[in-house]
Amino acid sequence: MRDKGITRRALLVGVGAAGGAGAMYAAMGALGLAPGEQRAEFAPPQASDFRLRGASAAKVVVLGAGVAGLTCAYELGKAGYHCTVIEARDRVGGRSLTVRGGDTVSELNGATQTAEFGEGVYFNAGPGRIAQWMVALDYCRELGVPIETFVNNNASAYIYNQGMAAPVRARTARADLYGYIAELLAKATDAGALDRRLTPDDKERLLEFLRRFGDIGPRNTYEGSQRRGFQVYPAVGEGTPLPGPGPLAQVLSSGVGRAVTVDFGFEQAMPMFQPVGGMDAIVRALADAVGDDRLRLGTRVTKITSLADGVEVEVRGPGGAEVVRAAYCIAALPPHLLAKIPGSLPADVRAALATPRPVATGKIGLEYGRRWWELEDRIYGGITETDLDITHIWYPSYGYHGTRGLVVGYYNTEEHAAAYGAMTHRDRLRRALTQGKKIHGEKYRTGVLSSVSVAWERQPHIEGGWVRWPSFTGAFELLQRPAGRVYFAGDWLTHLIAWQAGAMESARRVVTDLHKRALTETT
Amino acid sequence: MRDKGITRRALLVGVGAAGGAGAMYAAMGALGLAPGEQRAEFAPPQASDFRLRGASAAKVVVLGAGVAGLTCAYELGKAGYHCTVIEARDRVGGRSLTVRGGDTVSELNGATQTAEFGEGVYFNAGPGRIAQWMVALDYCRELGVPIETFVNNNASAYIYNQGMAAPVRARTARADLYGYIAELLAKATDAGALDRRLTPDDKERLLEFLRRFGDIGPRNTYEGSQRRGFQVYPAVGEGTPLPGPGPLAQVLSSGVGRAVTVDFGFEQAMPMFQPVGGMDAIVRALADAVGDDRLRLGTRVTKITSLADGVEVEVRGPGGAEVVRAAYCIAALPPHLLAKIPGSLPADVRAALATPRPVATGKIGLEYGRRWWELEDRIYGGITETDLDITHIWYPSYGYHGTRGLVVGYYNTEEHAAAYGAMTHRDRLRRALTQGKKIHGEKYRTGVLSSVSVAWERQPHIEGGWVRWPSFTGAFELLQRPAGRVYFAGDWLTHLIAWQAGAMESARRVVTDLHKRALTETT
Repeated sequence: MRDKGITRRALLVGVGAAGGAGAMYAAMGALGLAPGEQRAEFAPPQASDFRLRGASAAKVVVLGAGVAGLTCAYELGKAGYHCTVIEARDRVGGRSLTVRGGDTVSELNGATQTAEFGEGVYFNAGPGRIAQWMVALDYCRELGVPIETFVNNNASAYIYNQGMAAPVRARTARADLYGYIAELLAKATDAGALDRRLTPDDKERLLEFLRRFGDIGPRNTYEGSQRRGFQVYPAVGEGTPLPGPGPLAQVLSSGVGRAVTVDFGFEQAMPMFQPVGGMDAIVRALADAVGDDRLRLGTRVTKITSLADGVEVEVRGPGGAEVVRAAYCIAALPPHLLAKIPGSLPADVRAALATPRPVATGKIGLEYGRRWWELEDRIYGGITETDLDITHIWYPSYGYHGTRGLVVGYYNTEEHAAAYGAMTHRDRLRRALTQGKKIHGEKYRTGVLSSVSVAWERQPHIEGGWVRWPSFTGAFELLQRPAGRVYFAGDWLTHLIAWQAGAMESARRVVTDLHKRALTETT
Repeated sequence: MRDKGITRRALLVGVGAAGGAGAMYAAMGALGLAPGEQRAEFAPPQASDFRLRGASAAKVVVLGAGVAGLTCAYELGKAGYHCTVIEARDRVGGRSLTVRGGDTVSELNGATQTAEFGEGVYFNAGPGRIAQWMVALDYCRELGVPIETFVNNNASAYIYNQGMAAPVRARTARADLYGYIAELLAKATDAGALDRRLTPDDKERLLEFLRRFGDIGPRNTYEGSQRRGFQVYPAVGEGTPLPGPGPLAQVLSSGVGRAVTVDFGFEQAMPMFQPVGGMDAIVRALADAVGDDRLRLGTRVTKITSLADGVEVEVRGPGGAEVVRAAYCIAALPPHLLAKIPGSLPADVRAALATPRPVATGKIGLEYGRRWWELEDRIYGGITETDLDITHIWYPSYGYHGTRGLVVGYYNTEEHAAAYGAMTHRDRLRRALTQGKKIHGEKYRTGVLSSVSVAWERQPHIEGGWVRWPSFTGAFELLQRPAGRVYFAGDWLTHLIAWQAGAMESARRVVTDLHKRALTETT
């Protein structure tokens, strides 16, 4: 945004250079830029939009009952559109899959697992967390889906990298890294290395901050900190500190730095949230609002034809082959599968759909009969970060203090996911337990009651965890527009790939575009 | 702990100096020091301890039905001790006070507030959070008190210091501070300022970490980051960044550094927890386990006499004056009040009790009819930090997406608390709203449905938020031992002052000591 040739940023930097305490943030306020964060605007279609014109809402066929497809049908349904949702799988939700006891999970190679989880235990095999600013929370509110905190970062969880004989608590690694950084910068500042950059006042403020930040003493030397945690925590006595810290070189070479920064991103910052009882509460609520009579499960799309005045979608379901006709189509399938469906889509659109590369992604849910991570490790939710091929271990953010609990034993992507995906479930389990045992010891292996794994690249009608675009221009932009009467929707058409919020935002965009056009075409 | 003249720490530092990647943490593992964090050991008294001796458990009079007193009675009760708990207030829990609609809160100057909160709304006027390692969680598990996450740190909450025209999000302040720190240290490293301290490998690892830590580019310059948050968050489009960052001098002078470090401490690190439905669930569960028949509410202690073979406690309750006799007494009252009760306590004990200084502490609960902090600010739980006299604003970590909600409008201590405490509730409310409005605007003032404030230094039979000791030697140590047959218990006798866990740990210590003695005296 430009104003008389000065960008806002330049103005603010200018203010910053000249102003006093807080002047920059003050200027932000004056420009109306803080604190008002926003998401993309959305005005849902209203039934009155049609009534004003004396017209009735159009028929829309939605391909795919994942988050994007369901959101489209839900929003269009509010305005009276007649939606039919075609879903090849036998359940709604797509990747928003919560596995409970009795559920079966089949893979493309034919292997089928049946979950044996106990009452109340569930496994979010797909998305597992929602950031505060994400539209997924608005849908939870609107649909009455209760939410609770998802612990995305836990100071008591571990970091374990190859070469370590024992894991280290996240709080310990953080204290050591911050302590040494503070020491190094404080000493460089004291030695005059920053004199050209900092005024004496700046230096004083920086040193004050560094002492807080690193818990370094008045001599600006890091010698450990209570922040590292304790061998015996304070109680009546003052507690027994952990041994250490090791020297800086050690802390750096242990490679704990990556794990310490994982929640810095805007998508990962604490707190995060999850629906109570399993992530699929959102898609189930959407499907309920759309209505069972509009959902056609177990029905594959075999051909898509866009005509001048409508679309014809050939499908094959439990009742055999059929042609579904509608005024518009929203294709909310994975792009790499959509690219293969015959029909009238132009070559450039088809090429665009084949452009993003599906990413292998896998998770395993390990059910234990004892919540040893709470009882023995004092870890209540959160994630252990590791450079092993399991990448992460998630501890459950629900059912605290219960008898059973489900740990996600790996959540990995790309090569690691492909390697696990190529194994039988039995081998995935064995390997995950061998790896996790390095962190948690023998109980990790011996205590498992049951398990389910999902390799998303092997899930029928999905075939990938998410996609990766070579760029956000060209093909990505082309598919934002309809091909005739066929619109495209999905997280893969947003900058929030792999998030339910992406699917929802894309759905809102398509619904808005389609509705504008429908209002024109029905007058 | 010493072993052949080498402390563990020296050994580990030695290993650190010589070893490779992870060697220090490896050595910790080999010494059996990681990952096993522990709390102080506790073996609860068992009824069988007496049966083995053919004796019966003694009578104990417990003074005070706060967390410490109730924990004593609960643990002793397990072993069959006959406890009588004397409580001057008309409810159990002491400072663990949860206020709900219909509850009254009286102060020493005579003013009484009646809470008008709606269904499901509560105000934890005392303790509000529990760290994972704290024994309070063990009691929740043992007593079947369900817990949920308490959001102690929220990247979307604000920081507001005087002189700012608008608050800044915690995530923005953190990104700016870390970005500039990373830049300064990376540039100092590149310029050779740390060459005497770091090997080339160390430098490379440090730079790699700093780029992650500060999200600085390959030129080691901080120019903002998505971590700061967005004006419009990414969706279909890539989002609109916030303006800024301001220059380093600005960020330093805005004083946001204190707020960014608040959850670094071992007591404050995320995640934290709270009982579902209000903190008093713990004291109510303890009281239920102890049994109503053992609790004497509305009963003041007027004299404590320790005799050779027992104690006599004079009390005055609803039924008039009475003498309660027992083999032992546990005085779990605030020390400054205990110091004033007549009786046989020796002069040095009395002086020791008068040594710690009570600290003024205050909170106000503001009930709103609309959860605007979620709807408009996208803040789900957490704390806004400010240098105003309100110090903190807490957003509720429960009831997300509900219709009503309760914000803690101040949580302050010392001078600020004393200043608010000296006002009428009406004036406390007015001032709290004037201050909070600086952060949240007019809705903060106009949307309040009802409110309750508590000045702990004015609470009858409590008279302080907690205490501060001049040192943890002398008086503190003296009171760890019984004065004759009178034992002392409370958070004030631990290194966890102001935490329920402190009260519980002290209770466990006293119960252990008393039980050992009782076993000797009853043989």
